[in-house]
Amino acid sequence: MIQPNLKEIKNAHLRIASYINKTPVLTSSNINEIAGCNLFFKCENLQKVGAFKYRGASNAILKLSKAELEKGVATHSSGNHAAALSLAAKKQNAKAYIVMPNNAPKSKIEAVKSYGGIITFCEPTLVARESTLKAIVEETGAIFIHPFDNPNIIEGQGTACLELLNEHKNLEIIIAPVGGGGLLSGTSIVAKGIDKNIKVIAAEPKNADDAYKSFYQNKFIESINPNTIADGLLTSLSELTFSIIKKNVDEIITVSEEAIIFAMKLVWQRMKIIIEPSSAVALAVVLSNKEKFKNKSVGIIFSGGNVDFDKLPF
Amino acid sequence: MIQPNLKEIKNAHLRIASYINKTPVLTSSNINEIAGCNLFFKCENLQKVGAFKYRGASNAILKLSKAELEKGVATHSSGNHAAALSLAAKKQNAKAYIVMPNNAPKSKIEAVKSYGGIITFCEPTLVARESTLKAIVEETGAIFIHPFDNPNIIEGQGTACLELLNEHKNLEIIIAPVGGGGLLSGTSIVAKGIDKNIKVIAAEPKNADDAYKSFYQNKFIESINPNTIADGLLTSLSELTFSIIKKNVDEIITVSEEAIIFAMKLVWQRMKIIIEPSSAVALAVVLSNKEKFKNKSVGIIFSGGNVDFDKLPF
Repeated sequence: MIQPNLKEIKNAHLRIASYINKTPVLTSSNINEIAGCNLFFKCENLQKVGAFKYRGASNAILKLSKAELEKGVATHSSGNHAAALSLAAKKQNAKAYIVMPNNAPKSKIEAVKSYGGIITFCEPTLVARESTLKAIVEETGAIFIHPFDNPNIIEGQGTACLELLNEHKNLEIIIAPVGGGGLLSGTSIVAKGIDKNIKVIAAEPKNADDAYKSFYQNKFIESINPNTIADGLLTSLSELTFSIIKKNVDEIITVSEEAIIFAMKLVWQRMKIIIEPSSAVALAVVLSNKEKFKNKSVGIIFSGGNVDFDKLPF
Repeated sequence: MIQPNLKEIKNAHLRIASYINKTPVLTSSNINEIAGCNLFFKCENLQKVGAFKYRGASNAILKLSKAELEKGVATHSSGNHAAALSLAAKKQNAKAYIVMPNNAPKSKIEAVKSYGGIITFCEPTLVARESTLKAIVEETGAIFIHPFDNPNIIEGQGTACLELLNEHKNLEIIIAPVGGGGLLSGTSIVAKGIDKNIKVIAAEPKNADDAYKSFYQNKFIESINPNTIADGLLTSLSELTFSIIKKNVDEIITVSEEAIIFAMKLVWQRMKIIIEPSSAVALAVVLSNKEKFKNKSVGIIFSGGNVDFDKLPF
């Protein structure tokens, strides 16, 4: 498998540019004051389908041949990747077969439906997801697009950080949340490719700290029954993302559920934008470690904004 | 009293430009599809203090002499103007005395406090507000800055539409919500001043339709016990704003509470930004009158984003 690199991510950006939103980088003098540093928020919550996942899905779809597109694409996903793949497929008049766990958030199920994805529900285990997906792929011939264990996906996700660093050239630190590691992989390749002095920090919930353990014990450790409000960060790394993260990431910092909820509410209140808990994890890292970030220029990737309003933690 | 005009609004823009946020104009292909027209949302919910009011307050404060600033400023306000005046005063090291009704939303009280405003609570009637304010002004010598019955405030509020039309020159219709009429006055002067063919429509809750009645009966009719979720639109027009509106506004359209809540939720869900009910009234006008706006390019001013999360209507 080819390792994604900065050049391929720049190509991916040209490929997807006319399909995606060039999301704004927002700042908040109020939150800067609270944090004691200068924060630059890359707002992928304002991306199409409300998440960075649309970048990777678009890149993966646009790299398929006509013959492949005719058979459609398939994936299993807890939500945002499923919505992203559905919409990216629809834009190319292709079918998207989506395997979703039956406990996926309502808002994410509705989103997939509204984008024309063909949903098959399964039990919320990796085994059930994979066997259900396998049956669909065998029946339809659809191309499996993994949510993160796929170089084309990682290249697409890296384009958010590319836009951020094009717009703000003097960032000293970039923080991205880590679940399966697709966003973190793409982000870290771009940051280190542009300037190896930029520090790349991964943000992870304490209650789903498989990447943290894997990184510091230097062996792949699976996520087992994680229980965090950050529902986008439940999955384990893959071999591909783990290898990229080991090479490019400087540090992984974990945060409590309380810190995640506090950061999420702060953004809603002060910035008037809607972020999902997974997005808040990166800001929670800063607010839980103020000395470390004092007076630094820090880029933060807000990964998405899909929440169920009737299940707000505040 | 001098009537505000386009030239003075352009001067106000130069005066306040370095103090305010140049808020983004956002679009949503999803909401355009639902509405059947092209909507351009001027996001004053992303303005400092979360509302367009910061524009008017900044302009009014920056026009004061040093001697006047030393005595401070005072106002009565249900919320956003109070927060705006407090912060604008603080930036010039001036005091802001704020009279607030004791039923004002918690988030707005907290905002005024956090910006250093000196609050005096009173009963939620116009009489109580005015007598409390009078006593404070007599005691301190502070300059009274009315929330909308003040040319400097109206000039400041007009700068939002000025930025919108500078960025999108081909808008056919501009919609702004109407409460006291400060935003609508400034907006209508700018729109008609730039191109008299731009249609200016005011959006008002059916449950607080004093401007509608005043406009179509051609006489000033007071708002009596209005009961709407759009808590920024409870006040009556003033003589000044009514005279400007009669001259520059083409139409006032009222909408139901259900339509306001639907529009508010739609924006939260699809655009991932937080708007307060008063902001949603303008979009509700479009969604309740789709034929009228079909295929038009419509500018909508989102007036603010201050909400109590524990009192959401959805």
